[in-house]
Amino acid sequence: MKRNDKPIAVVLASGGLDSTVTTAIAAQNYRLAMLHVNYGHRTERRELKAFRDVCDYYQVPSNLRMELDISHLKKIGGSSLTDEAIPVSKANLESTEIPTSYVPFRNANLLSIATSWAEVLGAERIFIGAVEEDSSGYPDCREAFFDAFNRVIELGTKPDTHIRIETPLIHMKKWEIVRRGLELKAPLELSWSCYQNETEACGECDSCALRLRAFQTLGIEDPIPYVKRPRYV
Amino acid sequence: MKRNDKPIAVVLASGGLDSTVTTAIAAQNYRLAMLHVNYGHRTERRELKAFRDVCDYYQVPSNLRMELDISHLKKIGGSSLTDEAIPVSKANLESTEIPTSYVPFRNANLLSIATSWAEVLGAERIFIGAVEEDSSGYPDCREAFFDAFNRVIELGTKPDTHIRIETPLIHMKKWEIVRRGLELKAPLELSWSCYQNETEACGECDSCALRLRAFQTLGIEDPIPYVKRPRYV
Repeated sequence: MKRNDKPIAVVLASGGLDSTVTTAIAAQNYRLAMLHVNYGHRTERRELKAFRDVCDYYQVPSNLRMELDISHLKKIGGSSLTDEAIPVSKANLESTEIPTSYVPFRNANLLSIATSWAEVLGAERIFIGAVEEDSSGYPDCREAFFDAFNRVIELGTKPDTHIRIETPLIHMKKWEIVRRGLELKAPLELSWSCYQNETEACGECDSCALRLRAFQTLGIEDPIPYVKRPRYV
Repeated sequence: MKRNDKPIAVVLASGGLDSTVTTAIAAQNYRLAMLHVNYGHRTERRELKAFRDVCDYYQVPSNLRMELDISHLKKIGGSSLTDEAIPVSKANLESTEIPTSYVPFRNANLLSIATSWAEVLGAERIFIGAVEEDSSGYPDCREAFFDAFNRVIELGTKPDTHIRIETPLIHMKKWEIVRRGLELKAPLELSWSCYQNETEACGECDSCALRLRAFQTLGIEDPIPYVKRPRYV
């Protein structure tokens, strides 16, 4: 099959570890249509750089890259990721509470945008790197949520459109995601995960803690720079 | 019950006829949190004025008004409403085709935004003035679509959040909507429906045709100005 015969998949890519591995998975069977959404979160400039680096790595043409700025999630507020007045909580990987970094209904907003683009492009899939088990308890990261959203897509798009969300990481542990990324030669060194910093990762926010723990579990050094690297295993 | 004891409902209000009547219905039992989204469509300035006029009519306080600009639906394209290169079709009320004014997956984008705000506000309802029967065949205006979206909301918000979409007009004919609006003293003279013009309604686009036909069915003059008023009944 020639490259251009592959169907298109829209990939929601933050520039983080999970979405970079998801991109590597999607690239196996689809032409990549890379979608990055800035929603006013603290580290968006650094994530945008990571997104562009990953797009370059996969040689995605410019007409299949979309970078969007949406201000409404910041304006609506309610999260430490978008509201400077709410501090980013230090990681507590044992907690069952929803952390302050939860952006209300964020994934539905992202999937709605992705579906609009997918319908215009004639894409068949939307890939999102959501993870249920290691997901810090965000309600919109669960498989049942994505199943329900697939029903909304089927009912809310044109009859000749058939778009389905794929969540290849949904039941993986973070260390399994890292291992899968290494197997597929995903450019993990280009990805960015920290919720707090943009130059050296803080090592202490939820996102850093989950990432560091995964690499530590595998006994591999995370290739990105950190202010500090606490042991999480 | 005092005014402030009422629960909050987010109302998605374009400034059009349907959303103005929906606002009147929501105002009976809820405190109004009025949400207007500009998405780069042709007549957005005129609709924004209508939205503000309706908010003033219902004395909605400023902290419960939200006006958002989103550029992504325009950037994604695919609709005559947001893409100047695609002409607005003349009305064909008998057609079963989806008209060029269809904005791909628009209502899911709007409902996602509304849900994020509702979760932050602690609102119990989201009102949207969607109409299935007179809806020009848009797939995201059907009751089954909203039922499916309610499931997404239940799964994708915090466990202590219970938000439900209300579509009070969903099975009404347009003339029934006008009649209901008149009964509730909804300020129909402040609303704007035309997809084409911003000073005098064109009278010929789908939206004008549906509106004029409704008033003509009731034998009542539509109080807004038109360039021409073709007979549709």
